Amino acid sequence: MPANQIGPELQRLIDLLAKMPGLGPRSAKRAALYLLKKRDPVMRPLAFALADAADKVKACSVCGNWDSIDPCAICADVTREKTVLCVVQDVGDLWALERAGAHRGAYHVLGGLLSPLDGVGPDDLHIGALIARVKEGAVKEVVLALPATVDGQTTAHYLADHLEGGGVSVTRLSQGVPVGGELDYLDEGTLSAAMKARRPA
Amino acid sequence: MPANQIGPELQRLIDLLAKMPGLGPRSAKRAALYLLKKRDPVMRPLAFALADAADKVKACSVCGNWDSIDPCAICADVTREKTVLCVVQDVGDLWALERAGAHRGAYHVLGGLLSPLDGVGPDDLHIGALIARVKEGAVKEVVLALPATVDGQTTAHYLADHLEGGGVSVTRLSQGVPVGGELDYLDEGTLSAAMKARRPA
Repeated sequence: MPANQIGPELQRLIDLLAKMPGLGPRSAKRAALYLLKKRDPVMRPLAFALADAADKVKACSVCGNWDSIDPCAICADVTREKTVLCVVQDVGDLWALERAGAHRGAYHVLGGLLSPLDGVGPDDLHIGALIARVKEGAVKEVVLALPATVDGQTTAHYLADHLEGGGVSVTRLSQGVPVGGELDYLDEGTLSAAMKARRPA
Repeated sequence: MPANQIGPELQRLIDLLAKMPGLGPRSAKRAALYLLKKRDPVMRPLAFALADAADKVKACSVCGNWDSIDPCAICADVTREKTVLCVVQDVGDLWALERAGAHRGAYHVLGGLLSPLDGVGPDDLHIGALIARVKEGAVKEVVLALPATVDGQTTAHYLADHLEGGGVSVTRLSQGVPVGGELDYLDEGTLSAAMKARRPA
């Protein structure tokens, strides 16, 4: 549609909505129409929530999780097992582990993965802070919950090299067949890894 | 993840994002993470654009299109053929026709479809305004660009009954095989309609 046939306010809204992951140019228009029909219940509250979160949500100075309090709610939770530290690439992975209830210890968010090809080195990630945190002595186990990709495994190797020893054990998530996974649909790499890491039934 | 492990500002943002069409609870979290990483380039401008559009974008008093000027840019465009009036259910359908460049006349947005089962009658839609607009005399043809659903066809019949005569012709979009459509994948209703409305090759 010609640019002059749609108001500048509406066009800017559509352009910004289209930048969000999961929304393209067409679904951004659909979202804009939906929002304009729900101005008071959704559109204005969303505008406020965006500005409010942009101002108040900060990275936790201890673990890097995003929260409006610092230390974050997980770091401040005295019932959590602080001797087990789970290292994740990103806050999204932290949320995924929390959703699964898979970890009751603390976290450390790296903010990315080592990637020599993309020029991401140890100083670009929160690795120094992780090593300092482990050196403080309270942590007994570091669980590397990093993706099973080349960069993820590169990062895991680097961290294992720099963290092991001094009474700290470094572990990784197991690899294998996903729960509910049909063997027929799995890639060869996963099947080989699951076979290699086989355990007594 | 337990409610207390995620800040209230962030949780409210995720809940509101999840209400948008095309985003579910999980993709809303992904969108929130993306926005928090792009606070200045996307998140704050989006908050402003939402509030700005919520305040400024209004339904055109002539045709019902959404724009920040009234009459809207299409109604105000003197180069458009105002004798041909295209009736659509919704602003989204108007945008689709504009994107296709399928119509160079004026529009009238009904704001919905007649639906006896859902209790939507003529007074719930902008039908009175349409009839008054046609009675003014400038319109020579009314094109009913309504969906090929039961409610769409009910509405089309009702409008044809109330608009025809007095020098105004009422037309509808043709039905048939979509451009690029494989016959094998088309439903029986479309195939029957295309066969019935067959034309010389």
